[in-house]
Amino acid sequence: MALWDVIKGFQNSAGPDVNPDLDTERKTASFSVERLTNILDGGAENTQIRRKVNAVLQSDPEFSRENQYFQSQNERYEGAVRRAVYLSKKMDEMGWAIDGPENKYCYRALGDDLAFVVHGVFMKCILGLGTDEQIAKWVPLAEKHYIVGSYAQTELGHGSFLRGLETMAIFDVTTQEFILNTPKISAMKWWSGDLGRTATHAVVFAQLYIKGKCYGIHPFIVQIRSLQDHSPAPGVTVGDIGPKMNFAQADNGYLMLENVRIPKENMLSRFSQVLSDGQYIRQGTEKINYLTMVVFRVHIIQTEVLPNLMKACTIAIRYSVVRRQSELKSGGPESKILDYQTQQQKLLPQVATAYAFHFLCDYLQEVFDRGYAETKEGKFDLLPELHALTSGIKAFTTDYSSAAVEVCRRACGGHGYSLLSGLPSLYTALVASCTYEGENTVLLLQTARFLVKCLGIVKAGQPLPSSVAYLSSISSGKCGAQEKRDFLNPDVYTEAYKQRAFRMVENAAIKLQSLIQSGTPQHEAWNLCSVQLVLAAMAHSHYIVVQNFVNALEKIETEFNIQKVLKHLCDLFALHGIVSSMGDFLQIGHLSEKQSDRVIESYLDLLDLIRPDAVPLVDAFDFSDANLNSAIGCYDGHAYERLFEWAKKSPTNNQDNQTFEKYLKPLFQNALSKL
Amino acid sequence: MALWDVIKGFQNSAGPDVNPDLDTERKTASFSVERLTNILDGGAENTQIRRKVNAVLQSDPEFSRENQYFQSQNERYEGAVRRAVYLSKKMDEMGWAIDGPENKYCYRALGDDLAFVVHGVFMKCILGLGTDEQIAKWVPLAEKHYIVGSYAQTELGHGSFLRGLETMAIFDVTTQEFILNTPKISAMKWWSGDLGRTATHAVVFAQLYIKGKCYGIHPFIVQIRSLQDHSPAPGVTVGDIGPKMNFAQADNGYLMLENVRIPKENMLSRFSQVLSDGQYIRQGTEKINYLTMVVFRVHIIQTEVLPNLMKACTIAIRYSVVRRQSELKSGGPESKILDYQTQQQKLLPQVATAYAFHFLCDYLQEVFDRGYAETKEGKFDLLPELHALTSGIKAFTTDYSSAAVEVCRRACGGHGYSLLSGLPSLYTALVASCTYEGENTVLLLQTARFLVKCLGIVKAGQPLPSSVAYLSSISSGKCGAQEKRDFLNPDVYTEAYKQRAFRMVENAAIKLQSLIQSGTPQHEAWNLCSVQLVLAAMAHSHYIVVQNFVNALEKIETEFNIQKVLKHLCDLFALHGIVSSMGDFLQIGHLSEKQSDRVIESYLDLLDLIRPDAVPLVDAFDFSDANLNSAIGCYDGHAYERLFEWAKKSPTNNQDNQTFEKYLKPLFQNALSKL
Repeated sequence: MALWDVIKGFQNSAGPDVNPDLDTERKTASFSVERLTNILDGGAENTQIRRKVNAVLQSDPEFSRENQYFQSQNERYEGAVRRAVYLSKKMDEMGWAIDGPENKYCYRALGDDLAFVVHGVFMKCILGLGTDEQIAKWVPLAEKHYIVGSYAQTELGHGSFLRGLETMAIFDVTTQEFILNTPKISAMKWWSGDLGRTATHAVVFAQLYIKGKCYGIHPFIVQIRSLQDHSPAPGVTVGDIGPKMNFAQADNGYLMLENVRIPKENMLSRFSQVLSDGQYIRQGTEKINYLTMVVFRVHIIQTEVLPNLMKACTIAIRYSVVRRQSELKSGGPESKILDYQTQQQKLLPQVATAYAFHFLCDYLQEVFDRGYAETKEGKFDLLPELHALTSGIKAFTTDYSSAAVEVCRRACGGHGYSLLSGLPSLYTALVASCTYEGENTVLLLQTARFLVKCLGIVKAGQPLPSSVAYLSSISSGKCGAQEKRDFLNPDVYTEAYKQRAFRMVENAAIKLQSLIQSGTPQHEAWNLCSVQLVLAAMAHSHYIVVQNFVNALEKIETEFNIQKVLKHLCDLFALHGIVSSMGDFLQIGHLSEKQSDRVIESYLDLLDLIRPDAVPLVDAFDFSDANLNSAIGCYDGHAYERLFEWAKKSPTNNQDNQTFEKYLKPLFQNALSKL
Repeated sequence: MALWDVIKGFQNSAGPDVNPDLDTERKTASFSVERLTNILDGGAENTQIRRKVNAVLQSDPEFSRENQYFQSQNERYEGAVRRAVYLSKKMDEMGWAIDGPENKYCYRALGDDLAFVVHGVFMKCILGLGTDEQIAKWVPLAEKHYIVGSYAQTELGHGSFLRGLETMAIFDVTTQEFILNTPKISAMKWWSGDLGRTATHAVVFAQLYIKGKCYGIHPFIVQIRSLQDHSPAPGVTVGDIGPKMNFAQADNGYLMLENVRIPKENMLSRFSQVLSDGQYIRQGTEKINYLTMVVFRVHIIQTEVLPNLMKACTIAIRYSVVRRQSELKSGGPESKILDYQTQQQKLLPQVATAYAFHFLCDYLQEVFDRGYAETKEGKFDLLPELHALTSGIKAFTTDYSSAAVEVCRRACGGHGYSLLSGLPSLYTALVASCTYEGENTVLLLQTARFLVKCLGIVKAGQPLPSSVAYLSSISSGKCGAQEKRDFLNPDVYTEAYKQRAFRMVENAAIKLQSLIQSGTPQHEAWNLCSVQLVLAAMAHSHYIVVQNFVNALEKIETEFNIQKVLKHLCDLFALHGIVSSMGDFLQIGHLSEKQSDRVIESYLDLLDLIRPDAVPLVDAFDFSDANLNSAIGCYDGHAYERLFEWAKKSPTNNQDNQTFEKYLKPLFQNALSKL
């Protein structure tokens, strides 16, 4: 079979066997689904590459995800390692480079079933924090998986607050070694990915001590297990932290170190160095580390948050047009559940959110690229803004998307509760992102700190960075819209979001200042304002997302039909946000009671307007059935048949169990004579 | 060991080994924890019985829950059957009657680890819908587990809308049998508990056909499996529906029937009967069925929703005082995370909710008892109100509690994501209750229909039932409170909730009427108002809960200290609800912008006020460590030690796996010469 046939075979296309209830939805699309897919992919060429990668992987039985929902944690782990090793070979075979476009599409197709994810972080960490010699020594080995590394930062008792980490690395001048120790149980490394059962090495973050003086947190490469027989290295206690809400495939681990000695060369020394006599030298600037955090956050949104949200929307929307229940007209046929306003109100705002976040990713990538370019020229001015922006956006998008996926799941009723629907695992995976790479509340407070600082800059008459520039040009005022259609004007709603964000930041800052002026110690005052500061940072991020969606639409002017439907989604995203936080907009006096009623009317009208395009809009995400791995979200709409087929394969039906013989038979025998 | 010693051994008591960070929290309680526990139990005698049951069960290794989080679906199922069978014996042994007080405490201790839960529904169904002869024949067998029954109502393609069910039961006059069939795949019974691998019988709901005429849905007892060898009965296809988000212990099943013949006597015939000649007779009133639904809903809130919510609060609050992170004072020690306002704002409203729902259960029980008494006297007037009330309350409490538990889980950061914390399973179990026994949106629309009807009754000058009487006596008006302390007046906030509920019902009703008057067909008009109707029903339910909490406090006047702290919680619950839906209160003009600011201030002040009693308040729920089954929520506060101990037991650390030998060793060997 030629590759082209393979691709066609795995592409979504309406065959004769499509459920008519789904088929009719596709016939009335107001726009070209393929063109929208191309836009989402950033060009038709990318769509082609993505489909080719998908086809190659899906035609290879090694990558089958068929039994994923039936597997134990051990089976998931073994499968993930097997597939990761095999994928390396496959990529070599296909000529796909690690930094080529195919790589990200491989991850899109198989991401939640691959090991060595944190191993990638290990490599990036060496590349970012290591000297040229260290990079030359370790990275080639890591690239080929001759070693597997973990990233051991978080401790059992310490998370986001790095200064609190307790692991110690004491420099021993006599042997030119560092001696690493876990002084107490709360100092155990915990959660590190690829560590529990795989890693041979780890970058361990520890407090550096030289001659009794602490120099703060530094990164050290530590060998964890023997390369020969995989037994723990001397002084090392290592293992898996056990079952989690998801990520069964990942061996998150714990690590305890007892007088583990590593050579001096194993401290990653790009930014600080320990000389043989114990002299400590700081060199260069660590500001660039901000960029690492920024790139991780952007990466999370692009590769974890957005695809999961899009998948959930696809599954829920498709299911909602093949599921029929109750009557819209008395005595009529049962109606598609998506024809109920309540169901539209659950799902369509989530589809709008998926599109909003897609365009947000484009923006973040641009912003990051700009920051990266400047940093390479030695300019670090953009970094604090970038850090604040991506902290808030990471928190906003992960929070919002987790909630969105759970709405999608629950909107599928009982079947959304079955793992076979694919929805529970999307939620349980996505919601983890609210916690990892910076807990959301902590991140929002960092954004808030930046925003409060910006108000001070405005007061001092200085200019603000672009993403927060609006804070200096607010014309406090009431919304002028009258009719419900006025609220479909992007100028009207972006202004509302802008006013809200500004006023919430301002109010928190005023409260903060007044507390401090009345004698409350700074830290305490901050704490007493923190709930409001978090909300202000969310409101700011919300504004950024809405404004960016509006901006993005301007760029696709040439695609009239697509622009039109996306404009509806943009309106829906914006008005849904206003309706959901109506109190904020009323409280600052920007909207009147009457206007708030018009917003709700306008919002409900949009549901009706978007409803006919619901299926085409999620089809455009172009996930194959194998990508979705959902019995109820498949392209052909045969939800019930697939649920039944998949259920029959469950080990609960096929593994012999002794329950009847052992416990039930003795009881049931008593009824034999009576029935 | 005497029983008393056993009990003491399993009771929560501060030993010398309690984490000092938790211990100090208990020393400053403003009230007697034991007295509050007694109140929650409905008297000190109940506390004693509950503790005795707990002690007996926990001292029996058969009931150990130690490895629950490590088990496969098959292991969970086998364990649940084993324990359910063993529990029956144990109860006999202890002299605990099925309808005695101990039974519910057994369920509280072991509920999520027992089989035969739906078997209980099967029995109740026969008791409610069967004739005296049918009851006499089947119930004694079921009580002793000589047969195990399932309840087969929901179909693959049909849920809440009973009329849509497709399973058929055709009466064959010649053989005096019913012939049952599953006409197509969407008609398969699906989700039925205890059916997948256990049940010998089921009550199957099917459309009754006599001589070609359909008489609607009726219940039939069908034998599913052989009592002798457990093989499916002729014409029966039965199996397990596979993995779910939780409830691995339950064998939810599917069922397909092909010309399955059952004797005429197997139609449950209390309310309708088929005579030998095919004549159909309806007898008595089925209105009493409402009562069955009502009792189930009250039962769900009491036994599923409330305990899970209380457990989540207990775990999260205890963890939040032993977890320390970051600094509240620069350079000071790391602070307990519960000392952060953001953490208080996450958790304390959930504790308040748990108390609100506890007192709500008392109220629902009273209301139900009254309804039951009246119904026994042949009066059915209360039933529509009871149905509307419990529909809304079921939706409100399950929605609210699911969100609350997830807030608790996420507030525990990374450790809340570990199954060992106990929190993920509380969420995944609780959230199912939003879907089962009536999907929440469907239920809220039923409540809304009743509320709209009530407005019509008011217009007609007729009196309203008590729970909705407020709809007839609304004095539209603005809130008169000025200072922030005014908002701690229950009259002020109950009035606000009342106004909000009334106005939301009224607005939806006005919109509905105007649509109908302008020619929109009734069903369509209803659909176009449904989003607002759902919100109105939620607002009504919210008012009921707040008002009831206020009423409940009046009854514990003699316990001054307890009343005081519960008053704070009641205020917090009420103000948290206002702050979270501020838009509603502003939109109707009940609160002004200025007042809304005061509400927020008052709300934030409450956090500070309640914080010192946080631990005592959750200790009062009196869950033992075994009940909680949480590594981070234990009474002694040794979260980290327990996480480590439990992780070491994980099969990921103890089951041999070939991953290293098969996939990693060949790669690692390449590094041997280089490192």
